Amino acid sequence: MKALVLEEKLKLSLRDIELDEPMGPHDVRIALHTVGICGSDVHYYTHGAIGPFVVREPMILGHEASGTVIEVGSQVKHLQPGDRVCMEPGIPDPNSKATRLGLYNLDPAVRFWATPPVHGVLRPTVVHPAAFTYKLPDNISFAEGAMVEPLAVGLHAANKARIRPGDVAVVMGAGPIGMVTALAALAGGCSRVIMTDVQQPKLDLAATLGPITPVNVARERLTDVVQELTDGWGADLVFECSGNEQAAASVFEPVCPGGAVIYVGIPLQPIAYDVAAAQVKEVRVEHVFRYAHVYPRALALMASGKIDVKPLITDRFTFDQSVEAFEFAAHMPPSSVKAQIVVAE
Amino acid sequence: MKALVLEEKLKLSLRDIELDEPMGPHDVRIALHTVGICGSDVHYYTHGAIGPFVVREPMILGHEASGTVIEVGSQVKHLQPGDRVCMEPGIPDPNSKATRLGLYNLDPAVRFWATPPVHGVLRPTVVHPAAFTYKLPDNISFAEGAMVEPLAVGLHAANKARIRPGDVAVVMGAGPIGMVTALAALAGGCSRVIMTDVQQPKLDLAATLGPITPVNVARERLTDVVQELTDGWGADLVFECSGNEQAAASVFEPVCPGGAVIYVGIPLQPIAYDVAAAQVKEVRVEHVFRYAHVYPRALALMASGKIDVKPLITDRFTFDQSVEAFEFAAHMPPSSVKAQIVVAE
Amino acid sequence: MKALVLEEKLKLSLRDIELDEPMGPHDVRIALHTVGICGSDVHYYTHGAIGPFVVREPMILGHEASGTVIEVGSQVKHLQPGDRVCMEPGIPDPNSKATRLGLYNLDPAVRFWATPPVHGVLRPTVVHPAAFTYKLPDNISFAEGAMVEPLAVGLHAANKARIRPGDVAVVMGAGPIGMVTALAALAGGCSRVIMTDVQQPKLDLAATLGPITPVNVARERLTDVVQELTDGWGADLVFECSGNEQAAASVFEPVCPGGAVIYVGIPLQPIAYDVAAAQVKEVRVEHVFRYAHVYPRALALMASGKIDVKPLITDRFTFDQSVEAFEFAAHMPPSSVKAQIVVAE
Amino acid sequence: MKALVLEEKLKLSLRDIELDEPMGPHDVRIALHTVGICGSDVHYYTHGAIGPFVVREPMILGHEASGTVIEVGSQVKHLQPGDRVCMEPGIPDPNSKATRLGLYNLDPAVRFWATPPVHGVLRPTVVHPAAFTYKLPDNISFAEGAMVEPLAVGLHAANKARIRPGDVAVVMGAGPIGMVTALAALAGGCSRVIMTDVQQPKLDLAATLGPITPVNVARERLTDVVQELTDGWGADLVFECSGNEQAAASVFEPVCPGGAVIYVGIPLQPIAYDVAAAQVKEVRVEHVFRYAHVYPRALALMASGKIDVKPLITDRFTFDQSVEAFEFAAHMPPSSVKAQIVVAE
Repeated sequence: MKALVLEEKLKLSLRDIELDEPMGPHDVRIALHTVGICGSDVHYYTHGAIGPFVVREPMILGHEASGTVIEVGSQVKHLQPGDRVCMEPGIPDPNSKATRLGLYNLDPAVRFWATPPVHGVLRPTVVHPAAFTYKLPDNISFAEGAMVEPLAVGLHAANKARIRPGDVAVVMGAGPIGMVTALAALAGGCSRVIMTDVQQPKLDLAATLGPITPVNVARERLTDVVQELTDGWGADLVFECSGNEQAAASVFEPVCPGGAVIYVGIPLQPIAYDVAAAQVKEVRVEHVFRYAHVYPRALALMASGKIDVKPLITDRFTFDQSVEAFEFAAHMPPSSVKAQIVVAE
Repeated sequence: MKALVLEEKLKLSLRDIELDEPMGPHDVRIALHTVGICGSDVHYYTHGAIGPFVVREPMILGHEASGTVIEVGSQVKHLQPGDRVCMEPGIPDPNSKATRLGLYNLDPAVRFWATPPVHGVLRPTVVHPAAFTYKLPDNISFAEGAMVEPLAVGLHAANKARIRPGDVAVVMGAGPIGMVTALAALAGGCSRVIMTDVQQPKLDLAATLGPITPVNVARERLTDVVQELTDGWGADLVFECSGNEQAAASVFEPVCPGGAVIYVGIPLQPIAYDVAAAQVKEVRVEHVFRYAHVYPRALALMASGKIDVKPLITDRFTFDQSVEAFEFAAHMPPSSVKAQIVVAE
Repeated sequence: MKALVLEEKLKLSLRDIELDEPMGPHDVRIALHTVGICGSDVHYYTHGAIGPFVVREPMILGHEASGTVIEVGSQVKHLQPGDRVCMEPGIPDPNSKATRLGLYNLDPAVRFWATPPVHGVLRPTVVHPAAFTYKLPDNISFAEGAMVEPLAVGLHAANKARIRPGDVAVVMGAGPIGMVTALAALAGGCSRVIMTDVQQPKLDLAATLGPITPVNVARERLTDVVQELTDGWGADLVFECSGNEQAAASVFEPVCPGGAVIYVGIPLQPIAYDVAAAQVKEVRVEHVFRYAHVYPRALALMASGKIDVKPLITDRFTFDQSVEAFEFAAHMPPSSVKAQIVVAE
Repeated sequence: MKALVLEEKLKLSLRDIELDEPMGPHDVRIALHTVGICGSDVHYYTHGAIGPFVVREPMILGHEASGTVIEVGSQVKHLQPGDRVCMEPGIPDPNSKATRLGLYNLDPAVRFWATPPVHGVLRPTVVHPAAFTYKLPDNISFAEGAMVEPLAVGLHAANKARIRPGDVAVVMGAGPIGMVTALAALAGGCSRVIMTDVQQPKLDLAATLGPITPVNVARERLTDVVQELTDGWGADLVFECSGNEQAAASVFEPVCPGGAVIYVGIPLQPIAYDVAAAQVKEVRVEHVFRYAHVYPRALALMASGKIDVKPLITDRFTFDQSVEAFEFAAHMPPSSVKAQIVVAE
């Protein structure tokens, strides 16, 4: 089959590749429709590795995907051919301790699309466990379906935050993950999100998505805005989505006593963490790794109109333009948030 | 001052009453603007008592109130004359164990407006602790301000529920408390509310307030609707807001394994509670008594547009029409939800 | 193989029975050593049914078991022949939604030993999933190992209670489940347990197990004792372990504001539940169904000396005395708590 | 009155000092009996400051105290002259937002004994709010009563940890706070504590206090011990009590997936915090600042025998030896844990 293959760092080909994909009784075969480009896909392309995960063999990219079921295994009950679906890209070991506890995202043995050595899904078809394949509601398009994967990260962060209705949240970073986290925080009960970035076009877009106060930290101090909007008390929640080390080290300033910080972005280096500053406020700090059990929740919130991801899909490419799409994504203009590739209509 | 006085069961007068209200250093004096009529006000009027609380002396009614600060005590810092405000009607003992733990609504010594022997606020002015007086945001009217009290009940219930984003909730009963609970549940993260009642006009109104599925239980089985909307799993949350004994006994049927039931309505009699049915699903059951710490949250959600209570204010009366207003409220048509009295413009 | 078979209500035989038990790759074969007699075993014997579960075919009894691994499947890694073990008697469907969420005890498809039509383990050997088979620490005997099953119920209840160190707990009912719940509550952080029953010998035994205050409710009022021991505040936690309808209806009297009630015992009928009484204290009510993920915790607490179940094992029988053992258990003297059958040394 | 006064850095006098202490209606006057020496007392002595808190005026030291009530204010109900008591050293503003939420330890306006400019209690008498004064049970000595303050830190940490019965905990650092945290963790439900230090005498003492596995990190790797004791899964909880920057940075190695870290010790500098390492395990990180609402819990656990602090009281001095006692505490031998001064018998 024809697939977008990362041959090695900085070398992408749209070419034929042979894949043997047997169907098990609990699997489905899916024809891919739309695949979004994630920052991690781009990072493998530009750096050939993310931390300990190094691309040593040609690997198909892409893990934010939607498509149509074309074949179902003998034990599959909730899906049938023709169903429009989106898929969780990580498949855990069902017998691991983490999985049995319900924490399948923390299973070290998880196999995750487009994480070496596992192939991604910028290709015509894939075989996938039915248990990690979710039917799209009728009012959700394939493009939106391919947004469920990043949205799931934001929703999982909102889950971890244990939002109480009316909370004020700071979201640091207005990239794709910051954006979906802001949407999830608002859908999850926050009355207002204060969002930071240094790219004004992203902040301008964010401000149109709901009760979001943009703060361009190149020009304004976040703490000043937070103090004013919270009568000096501080924000109930701080979602760090930038992955920037300085931002990640500054989280205890805007948060309120008894508040929570949720680390969503992944800094490349250890950060300077002020334990004493966190102690005087007894901050609870949560850390997010992908997601678990949230796809149905994401779909329910999208279907009922509480979350609209369409404004975040700023750029679409055909499958034939895949290499070009990655070039674009590697040098994304500040007004773009999410680029997607339509594998097949 | 002229006030709406419940002289005894079924006897209301709008008449002069002498009240001595000294100001303390932490108090404010408020000119009342709008006061909503609560079911409990009506119940004191029609029955002269609620459970152990018996009206033995003439008592001013009314506790859902907004107004304007006209005088502030020497130690008051966050308010000044001219501020538009709404007020919590319950004043706890600051030294009680419950209050110190942060559970001030559970303090048995709480003094609550229009609960014998404490006067309510259907009168021109009241002296109140500044700590329980909240400034209205500019975009919130006095009418909406007087809705914060009932909304606080719904929000407190949503807090207790510990909603996870995307939860599906059942709200039993489409009276005022059911309505505000539905709004709070949606603002607090639910993707959908399934709402029951036997009065079709209330359900019709509810269906306009957001992703709310009305179920007229005179004609449809709740369980059927829940099963269909949740693929047979059940609702994550059931808010019992009807106070009806049969409804309150039926909560374990629609709820999902591991789900939660929140009792908001107050049945007059003990209910038939099926422990075994709750056990096979390990349901968590929460009970709500008024509210604590939620007024600022209610105002934040209203100010940011996430909760709109205006459609619930169906009927308005002048202060001179107060007795008539109570007559109306005592025989409320099914299309009405909340009646309010404008004490002074 | 020779097994203790409940032929029908009130008819037990120790006789040969043919069982076909193939080993899967994730299974182990276990030679049974000790099997405790549970109230449910006795109830099937005396009544032929428990609620919807009716004994229609001859069924082997017994589910509180320990033994020795004698054969392991090809994929089993953490066990080997010769390992001394205890076993969880319930095997859930690994693909059910409840199991995937980590709530495997709530899976309706669970197959549970000695629950019709599933055979129990009063027999020489059994094949069981390795994932539900736990190695006994060296300092834990087979007799104690067979107590892990009932202790798991108490520990699961303690988990649900979310004990905060220093809590005072009431445990209603000093039967085997009440006893293990008291031990679990103390090991889990309670400073004191107040335990009720009407059988003085059981209370006398309980009082030797730790800081447990026995209350014979035939002679004393529980509320008086609780009020005195808690300076009038109430108990933080009430564990209802008697299954008695009157006891289960009285839980809101001893509990403190903001406290929790945990229903462990299973009343045969719906109880009279006073919602309003629960509301003024905003009680959290939890319901326990068997257990999940607690066997390793039970073993850890036993191995480190924090829980000692040995005083609860009051009566031991040989396998040949099995029928007699059930006769004994059906008419247990008040000084007995747990009877066990030694299948094979 | 005669008091132990820190005149300035490194200069202590036992001398007369004039103090004006009026009694309010909610206050009690207490004759001090025993006062423990805390690391913070010693640090003010040796450095003249702790972070932003600088000793600019002569200040009485001491805040771990027990004594006897000698006078009560007119509104005090739960205490009377002659009562043996211990006291919380911090007095919050009852009107602050933090206090009203129940988080009084986080009130920035708290006045805390022996924190400049507030005097401590190494003196004959003190006036204190009755609400922060707790009666000692009959079986608790004054020496133990003066240990409630440090124990409260450990218990508050155990509260924050949300221990589930059977958890395995690591406690880093076997100083006084590490010791009380270990005792609190065990009393609060842990099955075992793995305790680290480099001072062997402290570890030897720790090993006598319960199921505590000492690890001398000068000779052994903590991770190896944890891996072995937890079958490779990791510790459920890590309490960082050393305040050492390297230790505080290493917490994510021993903790299990989904586990929690509680920062109790206060590092002097920001630490190198590996967000990504915390993310792959989705660690929850809690921060402890003093304590709130735990004195009654500490006393309950001590009174029922679940916590015994007596082995930690290694050194006692008379009031006249106060200066000598501080010299001793400033150069504490590794076999000592807690030194106390008996102000008056």
